[in-house]
Amino acid sequence: MKAALIGLGSVGRGVAEMIAKKNPGISITGLADSKSGCICNEGIDIMAVLENKRKTGACGDRTITATDVIEKADYDVLIEVTPTNALTGEPALGYIRAALAKKKHIVTSNKGPIALAFKELSALAHKNGVALRYEATVGGAIPIMHTLEDGLNGNEIIAIYGVLNGTCNYILTRMAAEGLTYEQALTEAREMGYAEADPTYDVKGIDAAIKLVILANTIWGDGTKLADVDMTGIDLLTPDALRLAEEGDCTIRLIAEAIPEKKILRVSPRLMRKNHPLVVEGTLNALTLETDMAKEITLTGRGAGSIETASAILGDILYIRDHYARRD
Amino acid sequence: MKAALIGLGSVGRGVAEMIAKKNPGISITGLADSKSGCICNEGIDIMAVLENKRKTGACGDRTITATDVIEKADYDVLIEVTPTNALTGEPALGYIRAALAKKKHIVTSNKGPIALAFKELSALAHKNGVALRYEATVGGAIPIMHTLEDGLNGNEIIAIYGVLNGTCNYILTRMAAEGLTYEQALTEAREMGYAEADPTYDVKGIDAAIKLVILANTIWGDGTKLADVDMTGIDLLTPDALRLAEEGDCTIRLIAEAIPEKKILRVSPRLMRKNHPLVVEGTLNALTLETDMAKEITLTGRGAGSIETASAILGDILYIRDHYARRD
Repeated sequence: MKAALIGLGSVGRGVAEMIAKKNPGISITGLADSKSGCICNEGIDIMAVLENKRKTGACGDRTITATDVIEKADYDVLIEVTPTNALTGEPALGYIRAALAKKKHIVTSNKGPIALAFKELSALAHKNGVALRYEATVGGAIPIMHTLEDGLNGNEIIAIYGVLNGTCNYILTRMAAEGLTYEQALTEAREMGYAEADPTYDVKGIDAAIKLVILANTIWGDGTKLADVDMTGIDLLTPDALRLAEEGDCTIRLIAEAIPEKKILRVSPRLMRKNHPLVVEGTLNALTLETDMAKEITLTGRGAGSIETASAILGDILYIRDHYARRD
Repeated sequence: MKAALIGLGSVGRGVAEMIAKKNPGISITGLADSKSGCICNEGIDIMAVLENKRKTGACGDRTITATDVIEKADYDVLIEVTPTNALTGEPALGYIRAALAKKKHIVTSNKGPIALAFKELSALAHKNGVALRYEATVGGAIPIMHTLEDGLNGNEIIAIYGVLNGTCNYILTRMAAEGLTYEQALTEAREMGYAEADPTYDVKGIDAAIKLVILANTIWGDGTKLADVDMTGIDLLTPDALRLAEEGDCTIRLIAEAIPEKKILRVSPRLMRKNHPLVVEGTLNALTLETDMAKEITLTGRGAGSIETASAILGDILYIRDHYARRD
């Protein structure tokens, strides 16, 4: 199988390295970052390109763009791992539209296009008989979409509850464990590389809400939008709130929840029993799926990281290799 | 798709009811319990048969056996849900061999044949181009095999750690919560219907060890046998042991673990931090998969129950419908 890789940040590098290391029968025939690109239909030596990028800052020819790769390379699946733009979805949205129009399978870690244009993109993929896969957009390495698609196939999903933002979970874990203030815990999270200079996107619950929208659309396909989510962040929580929770053998977690029959679509700090399955520590993510037959299934794992995200992307690529190749 | 259903105990009834209720395009053309059977290649009215069995004790004609159904009915997939015999695997093992020889897909909840004859059965299925699926044998409703097969595809599994026996977990939960002795908690588990009159199979760790063997063979395919498992049960634990654990913010759980590189294959009571992801309450099951890319992924859910087990079986049937049908 041949793949084009767009984006060579930490996720893109992780994917490239894992494909080179594990050799799962995937040949990269085109790749591009924001400044340069290369096309080689016989297969690109990925490790040489990564080494070259480390030395020169470019992954190929500065006259070759991502769009050139998408339009001109010979590939079966587009691996789209450019940075997320939550407002416009661009440039990823355009890349994905262009590749779908050429009847290429899509594997992406990009929350923007999936949260903003899921209906359009999934309809286009369906019409063109190709896969649109985005396991890496929610819960990092945790195989949530695979579980919804196959593992719990036949189940009706009644509700979902998740800890979907590792930055918030780290801050809450540290506030509870050490009695830190929100500001102290945020500073620590920044020092650990878990929080951005501007933490708004994480601490206000926006990132968790975007992931909730992706899950809701995947499960119920009803055109849920970010504006529909009732959102409260963690930035106003005090050490007192966590201390009081602790006294009742509880703690506080930022929970994203969707319960269609109660019209609940919400991200907010919640008081949780400490032995609740969603009470995970540090930067971990967790998701509980409430279903009619299996009842509650909880999945826990790492919500971020270069190789962890590459795990989700590789799982999607191999799913296409194993299940779509058969169809031809 | 047409299915033959062998076994009409609580799991078989659950499967039959869910197929009738959800109508996922599966027609039951043959069914049998230990005393009777029926074949109708146009499709059996399952709810009428279940009603008839409630009234008369028979699911059909007393001259028709499970073997007749397997040999004579027109079906694509055999749903084998008879009671487990951990020593011989029979009669399920014979049923599965016979159906595989006829190039039928297999979906089973039966631990016996999978633990005893995995290598033989999977080779036969592979040779005949059919699926051998057994999600329901380990962890009840938790989609463990799906996660190994697709969700974490591309990952190397380094180690597994699981709480795989709900009876033991219930007893340990109650001993810790109420300071009960092992005997008191066992009596309570019996009253709740969580423990058999003879609890040996559960409390000595045999059931968990059989599930560990199934997982090890699925992941590493190296012919692991029950006799290879180092087994210690929970029947000698005292309330003092649990009280001491509690003082260190820990508790005790019966952990099944396989770590090939350390040559560890063991079921034993282990001291666990209370906030460890495997410390689940009551009859829940949990499994942590330690992998090279995704790192640790933990799955938690119900390990038993008629409808919960039917969820796993239906997931397997739909997987065959969706992925094998395409191949033809």
